Formats: sequence, structure tokens, C-alpha cells
Amino acid sequence: MSLPFLTQARAPLTCEIDALNEYGESLQVAIPAERALTVYVDKRELVTLMTLGAHPELLVLGYLRNQRLIDSASDIASITVDWDVGAAAVKTHHGIENIEAKTAKRVVTTGCGQGSVFGGLMDEVDQIVLPADAQITQSQLYELVNTIRLKETTYKSAGSVHACALFDMAGAEPEMLLFVEDVGRHNAIDTIAGWIWMQGDRLANASMVFYTTGRLTSEMVIKSAQMGVPIVVSRSGITQMGHQVAQAVGLCAIGRATNKRFVCYAHPQRLKLQPELAGPKPRAVVTET
Amino acid sequence: MSLPFLTQARAPLTCEIDALNEYGESLQVAIPAERALTVYVDKRELVTLMTLGAHPELLVLGYLRNQRLIDSASDIASITVDWDVGAAAVKTHHGIENIEAKTAKRVVTTGCGQGSVFGGLMDEVDQIVLPADAQITQSQLYELVNTIRLKETTYKSAGSVHACALFDMAGAEPEMLLFVEDVGRHNAIDTIAGWIWMQGDRLANASMVFYTTGRLTSEMVIKSAQMGVPIVVSRSGITQMGHQVAQAVGLCAIGRATNKRFVCYAHPQRLKLQPELAGPKPRAVVTET
Repeated sequence: MSLPFLTQARAPLTCEIDALNEYGESLQVAIPAERALTVYVDKRELVTLMTLGAHPELLVLGYLRNQRLIDSASDIASITVDWDVGAAAVKTHHGIENIEAKTAKRVVTTGCGQGSVFGGLMDEVDQIVLPADAQITQSQLYELVNTIRLKETTYKSAGSVHACALFDMAGAEPEMLLFVEDVGRHNAIDTIAGWIWMQGDRLANASMVFYTTGRLTSEMVIKSAQMGVPIVVSRSGITQMGHQVAQAVGLCAIGRATNKRFVCYAHPQRLKLQPELAGPKPRAVVTET
Repeated sequence: MSLPFLTQARAPLTCEIDALNEYGESLQVAIPAERALTVYVDKRELVTLMTLGAHPELLVLGYLRNQRLIDSASDIASITVDWDVGAAAVKTHHGIENIEAKTAKRVVTTGCGQGSVFGGLMDEVDQIVLPADAQITQSQLYELVNTIRLKETTYKSAGSVHACALFDMAGAEPEMLLFVEDVGRHNAIDTIAGWIWMQGDRLANASMVFYTTGRLTSEMVIKSAQMGVPIVVSRSGITQMGHQVAQAVGLCAIGRATNKRFVCYAHPQRLKLQPELAGPKPRAVVTET
């Protein structure tokens, strides 16, 4: 299988603007970039994505994948991004069959981020089979959360972005394979999906866990399952449909993960509890906030 | 002008699920609903919105408005929502002209929430004229933020939703006209847009300020400007394009608004500073976090 050629377009991720604070003082604040990237597939305009712009080629590849517009990275010859014109030119080997029909049905999701998925995603949920015995230990979960906490990020310097990360738990310690920030968390997860495709068979023995700062809405859970990732960890909570999809596909959904705390919403058999690591119990009853 | 007939479909906004915490204890947690609402315009399927479901008719009306698919609420005869089938039936008086062309261009935005706007929004930004002399005082801003803080919300009970609110600052104290939560902040702002349209001329003398818990991305700023609201307040930050649009249309963008703190990112001439109300200065330099 030959992988597509991707450019490596780069652009500044933050900029400084003048602002005023509550004391009437002028200050310079860093804010994240937000760029329009118009995707052309074989010269036909498909969509405009609003993105931070850190990994535009992987974003486009993952977008095409998660929209189910292509079946394999090898369908794509190249993705060429040019920030001067805000365009991503996708060249396929044989075109995209039925592109009109595939893009006709529109679902506008709750996602912070690219938000729109073309229809039919839910139809395919039933066909997803996740690795049966994939597990995460409470100790690994804590290491993962701590790794994220220590990361230098655009969020720390400029705020207003979501982050996603992909971890491999097969080794002695969780390995962070990729960390992606974007103005929308759906861009971030699509970028990770694109990256996974570019790895070919190299992840065959990986034990993947997906982390997101964003909420586990239906779209996030579906996309994780589509990538074959059976465990998701979020700093935020879950929605009812996110929960339903996780239950249905056998995906372990863990939310409210900060420091030593978390809530496992679905398929706890994938989580090897080690309550002795959790530290002393807080006095208050654990509730969602 | 005759306003459309809207049903008042209701559905539970939260549900309880079983979960496990870090001590291995079972607990019941409340999570927000996330429902698929498929919009049919004159029996033609347009889009599926994922929503909490608090105000589905206003959401659909505001969605059609913010996508620029209709010019006036009076173009619509009725919006009938039936949660049993997850459908919103929109009946127009004379159809939507050029609906194919209007929905062909797709922009997938950074928005947490409905995310997708059909093309051409940016083209119209230049034509927006906001009320020249609209202002907010620092005192009013603090009252507004405090009103939000005291509100009983789905967020407090179940987390994982964004909130928007519309305030009228014309009276002695800020009046909260509408408070909307949704799984996506774009649904929340669309719902407010729908509500504004249903008020007819009643808001002619209002001095509107828009509040959102979400980030001020380009889409949020554009939608606020489209509603004629010249001042936006956010608990979060702003993106570069959100800032550019606010600058261009003369919109005062205030972010990081919690307690006594805030940062004014654009058009501070609309903010009447009263630094004496800000309390003692923190020792650390004010930075974005």
C-alpha cells in the first residue's frame, strides 16, 4: 500500500493582540490562530474547515476518512496545502465514487470543532468491532492524565483550543504517540485519524487509548470507535447519545479525568481498578459538576 | 408581519446513568440529553441537528435564519417538532428560493455546537451595521456575569452543555431576556436568534448584549453581529478570526469574564470602564490562561 504524499505547510499558531483589562490597563495577549482551509478534491470544492493550522494535511486526510469519503489512505495520491490561498488540494488516484450522494446527507453535530459529519455514520456503528480484551489500568490512566498535564501547549500560552492525544499502552509506560490541538476538538480527532492512517501497519500491535479535553458527544465516541480505539478518556463529561454509542460498541468511556479523579461511564470491564491509588476519599459525595 | 406557529415540544433534558468512580464505587450521575432532530423544509430533508432539545422550534428558526436560508420569520408558516420521530417539519409560505444553491457551499466551523454554516456568511459581514452608540458599563458587565453565576442550570446538574444568554441593558439593571443551554454553543446562539425573530418589533428599543460560556470564534462573532448585537461577553477567550471579525464590524468583544476579571479584545470604546470597581490588583501580571 502506498501512502499519499503530504506537504508540510506551516503557519503561526498564535498571534498577539492589544487588549484592555478590568483596570483599564493595556496589555498584549496571545490568542490562537483560526484559519479557513478550503478543501478541493480533484479540483472540486468540498468543504471549508476552520482550523488552528498545526497539521492541515493530516486534518484533511482524517476528515475525508471520518466522513467515510475514502476507504484507505492509498486512495489518495497527494494532499497539498498552501496557506497563502488557504487551500488544500487533494489528488485521488481514481476519484471518489458517488461523492455527490455521500456528501448530500448532512448531520450537524454537537462537536466543538468541525462539527459537521455527512450522514450515515450512525448506520455504520453496528458494524464496528473493537479489540475484545483491550484494557487500561488505573495506574496507566493516572500516568496518561499526568503526561497531558505536563505538556507545553498552545492552550497554556493562548487558551481557546481543544487538545486530543493518542497513547499506546502496550509498553511499560503509556507512550504518547501524537498530541494535537485545534480550535475545534473535532479537527483534533480528525487529525489523529489521519495520522493513524499514515502509519500503515505500524500500529498493528499498539494498544491505543484516545484522550480529549472535550466532551464525549456522540460524534467523538463514533470517531474513536471508527479509528478502532476502544478506550477514551476525557477531562469533560459525556452526553446521553455519547453514552449510548459507547455502550453499544463496547467502548470504555472515562470522563472527568483530572488528577486522581475520574468517572467511568461505560464498559468498566476494560478498566482495571486500583482504588488504593486514588488517595484519601473526599468528604463530599461525588457528583457531576 | 405574521409570526410562524411553533409547537412547544418538550423532552427530558437530563438522564441518570450508572457509573463507577476512582474508588470503584457505583454512582448515579446525571448527563445531558443529546438528540437528533432532522429538519424538513416543505417535506425536503435539510439537515440533522444534534441538540439538548430545550427549545427545538426556536433552534430550527434560528438555524434557518443564521444560515441565511430565510429573510424573515414571516416567511415561515409553522415549525412542528415531534420528538417521537426526532423531526422538525418546517412549512414555508412560498418555499425557499435557490435552496440548492444556498446549501451547496459548506463551511465547517470551529464551533462547539452546530458547527456547520452554509457558505457566504463572511461575504455578508461587510454589510453589517451595528448600533453606533451602544455601550456597556463595567458595573453592568459585573451584574450580568453575576446573574449568570446565580442561574440554576442543566450545566450545574449534569455538566457538558454550553450556555448563551441575551440581556437588555436599556433599564436600570441588566435584564436577562433569554437563557439557553445546549450541547453545542452554536445551537444555543441559533436558538437565541430564533427567539429574537419571534419578538417582532418588541426589541426595537432594547440595548442587547450577548453572553456565551463558549469561545468567541469567527462563527460566534458573525452570528452575534447578524443578530444586530454589538457587544458580546464570554467566559472563554477569542480566536484570531473572531477578533478580526469583531474589529471589522465594530463589535465589542469581552472575554475571560469571571467574577471581577475580564479582557476586552476589540472596540473598547463601547465599554465604559470603571476600574475602581475591579477591586485590588492581583500581584501577578495578567496573562491569558
